[in-house]
Amino acid sequence: MSTTNRQILLASRPTGEPGTDNFKLVSTPVPTVADGQVLVRNHYLSLDPYMRGRMNEGKSYATPQPLGEVMIGGTVGEVVESRNAHFAVGDKVVGMGGWQEYQLVDANQRGVLQKVDTTHVPLSAYLGAVGMPGVTGWYGLVKIIDPKPGETVVVSAASGAVGGAVGQLAKVRGARAVGIAGGADKCRYVVEELGFDACIDYKQHGDVKSLSAALKGECPDGIDGYFENVGGMILDAVMHRANPFSRVAMCGMIAGYNGEPIPMSAPQLILVNRMKIEGFIVSEHMAVWPEALKELGTLVATGKLKYRESVAQGLDSAPEAFLGLLKGRNFGKQLVKLI
Amino acid sequence: MSTTNRQILLASRPTGEPGTDNFKLVSTPVPTVADGQVLVRNHYLSLDPYMRGRMNEGKSYATPQPLGEVMIGGTVGEVVESRNAHFAVGDKVVGMGGWQEYQLVDANQRGVLQKVDTTHVPLSAYLGAVGMPGVTGWYGLVKIIDPKPGETVVVSAASGAVGGAVGQLAKVRGARAVGIAGGADKCRYVVEELGFDACIDYKQHGDVKSLSAALKGECPDGIDGYFENVGGMILDAVMHRANPFSRVAMCGMIAGYNGEPIPMSAPQLILVNRMKIEGFIVSEHMAVWPEALKELGTLVATGKLKYRESVAQGLDSAPEAFLGLLKGRNFGKQLVKLI
Repeated sequence: MSTTNRQILLASRPTGEPGTDNFKLVSTPVPTVADGQVLVRNHYLSLDPYMRGRMNEGKSYATPQPLGEVMIGGTVGEVVESRNAHFAVGDKVVGMGGWQEYQLVDANQRGVLQKVDTTHVPLSAYLGAVGMPGVTGWYGLVKIIDPKPGETVVVSAASGAVGGAVGQLAKVRGARAVGIAGGADKCRYVVEELGFDACIDYKQHGDVKSLSAALKGECPDGIDGYFENVGGMILDAVMHRANPFSRVAMCGMIAGYNGEPIPMSAPQLILVNRMKIEGFIVSEHMAVWPEALKELGTLVATGKLKYRESVAQGLDSAPEAFLGLLKGRNFGKQLVKLI
Repeated sequence: MSTTNRQILLASRPTGEPGTDNFKLVSTPVPTVADGQVLVRNHYLSLDPYMRGRMNEGKSYATPQPLGEVMIGGTVGEVVESRNAHFAVGDKVVGMGGWQEYQLVDANQRGVLQKVDTTHVPLSAYLGAVGMPGVTGWYGLVKIIDPKPGETVVVSAASGAVGGAVGQLAKVRGARAVGIAGGADKCRYVVEELGFDACIDYKQHGDVKSLSAALKGECPDGIDGYFENVGGMILDAVMHRANPFSRVAMCGMIAGYNGEPIPMSAPQLILVNRMKIEGFIVSEHMAVWPEALKELGTLVATGKLKYRESVAQGLDSAPEAFLGLLKGRNFGKQLVKLI
């Protein structure tokens, strides 16, 4: 076991687009384990769009990431030292270990560290399809969109960890799943590997009219449910094809993360089509996690829920990988392998 | 009884703002009553913003008003001839009689004509507080906003038939009611007569920032529920003061009725504040009407639900009165007295 813990701190807040200079890599001694505590060697770090919001000082749904502290982030790893009766060396665990190699946890705090079973589900999946992204997709689809068999569900960022789960869960429920993704490779993957009915490459469409026409082609019966990860032009185009009584689960608006204006051009469609639009944050709905994780875990273990991972090697690659994620350069769930 | 029925037809569809030339007054013989039918002398015609949408050919939630036919509209009146066992001469009735003095009804069709009791509730109120506008306010407030005691509910067009009901029903439920209306007179009425906690004169505010600051002043604990009748700048300003988990009942967007663009400038606030925005049309929720009408009727009969009427005299005044309504020139429920 190393005696050094490498960490990445938030060095400064971005103005507009973030850069690698907003982050700082430091080395500190691996901390000593006190009574009740557990030391975890983090194996994978999850990179997620929500982190961009935390880098800002402004009002958002969450406390800003403090400057000079370890960037927050979900991790999976292995217990390497334990002075807590509930955890043993060798236990596989999921938690919020942050952008660092080792994590010291006061494991008596309920819910801070969860043991996971890697018999049928790979460890890294607990950061993706069977973790926060999977439950995010599950919540928006099941609790907000609530698709009926034969309805059409559209999801943006469809090749990502959240979007991929949304479409596959929609298919399980007998709905038609149409993805929106950037580039032919991602679209092919969404249809051929994830089993969506269709996928539209938004990069082929320069304006709302063009994208809206493409949606009409792939959604001949209109759109009954939309899972929003992007916002801007994509939301406008979807709204022009929305059916009466359609539902929009608003999960992310990555198009506006750097402060770009992303107006909704025709909110009167909410009225015309008697739509319901609902924003949510999955961490505020912990009561549904067991039900969601049970379905997601079973589907992954039985090969019915597929996903792809984009794995960057080593902690020092995290900032570049994160910036790439914000630009859609990742393909599937973005992870950093820390070991 | 007159032998002539005067009617107003839709003569042409407006391009942009409608004018009196879109309407045409005609005289026809009062129709003969066949078996099963009832002839009603209409006493009051209701003028409502939704009629503007029906004048367009474009896609809306309802079938367009056909050209050359009597304009649709809610009416109250009295049965003057009956060949139907369920209705007697002298019965007071509410129905969709249209912009005309007499209405021939096949009264066997269920729900086309409803007898009303004018012992404690004036006949005209069945077109306002105890009619479609009242139920509209009730549905959005009770079924979408669902305010808790101590929460703050904001309503635009607060001096109107719908808005006035929303605020008073919110007060009954222990919420704080803040109106938005145009002009000092309307605002004074909303506070002093209807009993709202405050009312903001939007005409005093030239931009979103100014209106948003005024809302902050009157809603120190933020906004938990918003009943939308207007759209545009008012919606933007409200969204900047919306609390986490706030609800928006989208009932009308009169600011965009003539085709003006009315973008929502920051839809990301739906996500940031985990808001729910829902459009609705009260005629699609007939199941709640009895419950709503019972509460509204009781509140009106006991003087606890107040309203004001703006009464234009004679059928020929209907077009001007309707155009005034669209410009906010009415004060309270806009009616046309037909007798």
